[in-house]
Amino acid sequence: MSFKQKLEKIVKKNNSLLCVGLDTDLEKIPQYLKNYENPIFSFNKQIVDSTHNLVCAYKPQIAYYSALGIKGMRSLLKTIEYVKTKHPEIPIILDAKRADIASTSEQYAKEVFDVFMADAVTVNPYFGLDALIPFLQRKDKGIFVIGRTTNRSANDFQDLMLNGKPLYMHVAEKVVRWNKTYNNCLMVVAATWDNELKKIRKIAPDMFFLVPGIGTQGGDLNKVLKNGLRKDKSGLILNISRAIIYSASNKEFGKSARQKAQEYKDLINKYR
Amino acid sequence: MSFKQKLEKIVKKNNSLLCVGLDTDLEKIPQYLKNYENPIFSFNKQIVDSTHNLVCAYKPQIAYYSALGIKGMRSLLKTIEYVKTKHPEIPIILDAKRADIASTSEQYAKEVFDVFMADAVTVNPYFGLDALIPFLQRKDKGIFVIGRTTNRSANDFQDLMLNGKPLYMHVAEKVVRWNKTYNNCLMVVAATWDNELKKIRKIAPDMFFLVPGIGTQGGDLNKVLKNGLRKDKSGLILNISRAIIYSASNKEFGKSARQKAQEYKDLINKYR
Repeated sequence: MSFKQKLEKIVKKNNSLLCVGLDTDLEKIPQYLKNYENPIFSFNKQIVDSTHNLVCAYKPQIAYYSALGIKGMRSLLKTIEYVKTKHPEIPIILDAKRADIASTSEQYAKEVFDVFMADAVTVNPYFGLDALIPFLQRKDKGIFVIGRTTNRSANDFQDLMLNGKPLYMHVAEKVVRWNKTYNNCLMVVAATWDNELKKIRKIAPDMFFLVPGIGTQGGDLNKVLKNGLRKDKSGLILNISRAIIYSASNKEFGKSARQKAQEYKDLINKYR
Repeated sequence: MSFKQKLEKIVKKNNSLLCVGLDTDLEKIPQYLKNYENPIFSFNKQIVDSTHNLVCAYKPQIAYYSALGIKGMRSLLKTIEYVKTKHPEIPIILDAKRADIASTSEQYAKEVFDVFMADAVTVNPYFGLDALIPFLQRKDKGIFVIGRTTNRSANDFQDLMLNGKPLYMHVAEKVVRWNKTYNNCLMVVAATWDNELKKIRKIAPDMFFLVPGIGTQGGDLNKVLKNGLRKDKSGLILNISRAIIYSASNKEFGKSARQKAQEYKDLINKYR
């Protein structure tokens, strides 16, 4: 089953567009877990156990794990193995924003798909198509190309008007074109900029978008859904990380995360 | 000592602008090393031992190591530790092309500078300035922002024209501006496109550029030096990887790599 099929299936089964971001930071997890043998994995396991039937995907951010060195990479691997064993119906989007010349991208594709067994990855468009081909050639995987990002300085380059259109729209148009060849392209589009989302939906009516920036980063959920949903009221993966996983800092954090995830899921479905 | 000082010093000491790229691929190293406990490290150690007084930097490409999982990361760590212990005068540029929103970039900065102890890193400009600040704030480190890359599809976005200038020139101008604040910016500029190099040198007369694409990728050395050198005949780090490290596939590969490195160093100095 391809990533896109897996995604469509779980969206229906769990009736959810919510993705929980596993940006697990050793400094932010409950104190008591730090005595455990693997605090990061123990944290993730409880989050996954508490939320698995409320979500359409998990999105670990690889930087949080690699910042801890080999120990962190081991925690990430263990987390992904756990999801694949216990909840194999839920896709893993590895947020890695990789890209380089093709021979190097081949190695990155091995990292995310062979080492970490991710179902999908985020990639950076700056190098252009040939840098992404090693990812795109993995037909059963999902390749999320960054379009418009959530950060303030995104306008440094992404909003520059080139031949009458902002750069991010050139990127979006190319992604739509590449998808005709590879059929496994998706896009990352920030929730904090609802007009951008509307413009990109117009040129990619059928594509799934990964939308960060709703929880802590402050995107307006109602607007995002109005501007971003496909005609079938699906097509968005709404990522929330900190607002769910760090909603409590005691032994009840799993329960609290579930409550928060339920609230977000319901809110999203209310506006769908 | 800052990265830039360390770099200027070794360029003078070794009279070399040559950087050896440690893109060490398990499939390309001499067969006999595969019986060793740590083939990748054993290979790198011999390359470093054979070339350390001919180079101004080593540039491991992180993707080749992470493609091998935790074992690969351990080989990278061991390689960097080895250079730092045996040849501490030679800076390590970790080629990682990282960038994300600031909270994530902070984690990436920990990965490259705290876990892997690199002296410098390559980063991707697509997110804009705030995504790079966590790197730039490491005042003693060198931050190489990608300008124009070597791959064919680089023109997908990097050459798009805005106000009469291509995107990569807008990036270069921003990097020059950011450098006024942080004083640790450098740029990656492809050797395969000599006019681009000339244009970027014009707006950044004093900056060091990392120039990939000379060896296997086919950039013309003479042109590159003519267009890229600073007035003091320095300011370029010319990276060659495969043409040096894979020049022989037998037990003499270290000797052969030294010969190749010497040839490139001399050729570069001839045209300087």
